[in-house]
Amino acid sequence: MRAALFHGEGEIAVEDVPDPTIEEPTDAVVRITHTAICGSDLWFYRGQREFPTPGRVGHEPMGVVEEVGSEVTHVQPGDRVLAPFWISCGECEFCRKGLHTSCVDGDSWGGEMTGAQGEMIRAPHADGTLVRIPDRYADDEDVLEAALPLTDVMCTGHHAAVSAGVEAGDTAVVVGDGAVGLCGVLACRRLGAERIIALGHHEDRLEIAEEFGATDTVAARGDEAVDAALDLTDGGANHVLECVGAESSMDTAFQVARPGGTVGYVGVPAGVDEAAFLETAFGDNVTLAGGVAPVRAYVDDLLADVLQGTLDPSPIFTKTVDLDGVPEGYRAMDERDAIKVLVKP
Amino acid sequence: MRAALFHGEGEIAVEDVPDPTIEEPTDAVVRITHTAICGSDLWFYRGQREFPTPGRVGHEPMGVVEEVGSEVTHVQPGDRVLAPFWISCGECEFCRKGLHTSCVDGDSWGGEMTGAQGEMIRAPHADGTLVRIPDRYADDEDVLEAALPLTDVMCTGHHAAVSAGVEAGDTAVVVGDGAVGLCGVLACRRLGAERIIALGHHEDRLEIAEEFGATDTVAARGDEAVDAALDLTDGGANHVLECVGAESSMDTAFQVARPGGTVGYVGVPAGVDEAAFLETAFGDNVTLAGGVAPVRAYVDDLLADVLQGTLDPSPIFTKTVDLDGVPEGYRAMDERDAIKVLVKP
Repeated sequence: MRAALFHGEGEIAVEDVPDPTIEEPTDAVVRITHTAICGSDLWFYRGQREFPTPGRVGHEPMGVVEEVGSEVTHVQPGDRVLAPFWISCGECEFCRKGLHTSCVDGDSWGGEMTGAQGEMIRAPHADGTLVRIPDRYADDEDVLEAALPLTDVMCTGHHAAVSAGVEAGDTAVVVGDGAVGLCGVLACRRLGAERIIALGHHEDRLEIAEEFGATDTVAARGDEAVDAALDLTDGGANHVLECVGAESSMDTAFQVARPGGTVGYVGVPAGVDEAAFLETAFGDNVTLAGGVAPVRAYVDDLLADVLQGTLDPSPIFTKTVDLDGVPEGYRAMDERDAIKVLVKP
Repeated sequence: MRAALFHGEGEIAVEDVPDPTIEEPTDAVVRITHTAICGSDLWFYRGQREFPTPGRVGHEPMGVVEEVGSEVTHVQPGDRVLAPFWISCGECEFCRKGLHTSCVDGDSWGGEMTGAQGEMIRAPHADGTLVRIPDRYADDEDVLEAALPLTDVMCTGHHAAVSAGVEAGDTAVVVGDGAVGLCGVLACRRLGAERIIALGHHEDRLEIAEEFGATDTVAARGDEAVDAALDLTDGGANHVLECVGAESSMDTAFQVARPGGTVGYVGVPAGVDEAAFLETAFGDNVTLAGGVAPVRAYVDDLLADVLQGTLDPSPIFTKTVDLDGVPEGYRAMDERDAIKVLVKP
């Protein structure tokens, strides 16, 4: 089969690789029909995070089950499925607790494992990891494109909102206008937030934020953004979603939090070397909650909304490519020509 | 009157200063009968934090009201009172919310203000700040010495436990065997924790931890302490109290937290420059909650227990001095000859 591989900073190539096979009785093999390129893929693409070379890429798989191991009971060949960005057994203490990202048998896609940006993947712990899309929706392209972000960014934005304690009637500030930030806005609206203030840098992305439910948008950086948010909230919001993972966005998030509030953070902390945010956090008892999103815990709930037509994050896909277009997809995201790239192998 | 002043690293002197007077109609003047030296006083004493020179010192006042301003209604001359380490109005959004440390009119004792390590203080916002000890206990020395830690360390330890989410039946790890850590152990017991593991460096302090309810103690540093705690908890505790505020103790706290758990931190972050703990926090969704303790919010509840004889943190006072003994008290705490020094001016 063919799959995208990372060969070093800025180098993605689509090449022939061996077909995946059932290696464990709990495996499935899935033919990828839809996947995506993630903002977090840019970290290794830009040389800012270690990654195997050559290494398989992509961690947002959706497709059709080709083959299952002898112990797999939840899915069968022909089923349309999606999988969270993290592989999980579904049975351990942490999976039962809804913290699948801390699964004792957990693993990530890509690297040495098969990646989602390819024709097929081997899915370990298929019963725990794969989520079946009911047959009646299995070929509805609109449903599939709305469901695909549940593999990562939509559930990640939701995790930020849940971690920040957003509930009906609340005021929330969302820091970041990338795909996760936009999904965070959508999650806040879904949870009933009355006021949603989106902070970002890009007018076009903030337009999507408005479409997703932002009641106010601020296109500014640093102190200017902080001042605007403090002004809009009369001194800070009780609920802040940090959806970037940079030192500056972390600082901003704490600066716009109201004393006693909570920052829900989901951006992989990259380059957050200094703990300057702790000074604000400590003095005003602002809680830092969140972390890597336990997507599997949220998929059923959010998929219900996708299936009933009340949740559609697909406008974050501003470009679509086929498998051969994956290198171009990385380039487009790296150069901010696209918010998020949909890949249809 | 006479009061202790800070003159620079390692220099505390007791000198004549002007008597405090009523400056605002909401002020009271309190004659100090009991106060203490705090572990956080050592930061400026050791030159590790900026502090005015000369500057008044002491932030744990207990005494008898001498005089009140015309608008003070909650206390009157002759009342025995104590005050939290932070001055608060008692009326603003944050005071009403139980977050008195973010009071919009809040202030700290000492520095330019009068300090508790002296014969008298001027207490601003007396109605909001001062807590009356009922007359029937007002001259009971045992009660007063048990109540004095409510001005800071006992409520701070309690805040760590509350922030870490400790409830009946829980397992908690307490990082730090200073006065706050020991009070944290006591708070965990009071909240009904079934297993309380105290991590420290000093056998004598860990003995007090046992007296306060620790079911297990670990006298070790770094990886050795982490390994022991992980072993005792089969992989980490859901509730961790960080009672030091150093970079190493912060790292330890996150390392001994169970995935999905919470670290309640109350040690003023001093020298926590690097955000290395974020990696653990993010990967395992460990929440960081807490901050500077809103003592005023907890005093009533904890004072009830002191008055009924079920809470007594006074064993943390391992040395008693008069006002002239304050410089020696600092020396003793600096050199770890005393856990916490009681001052009776």
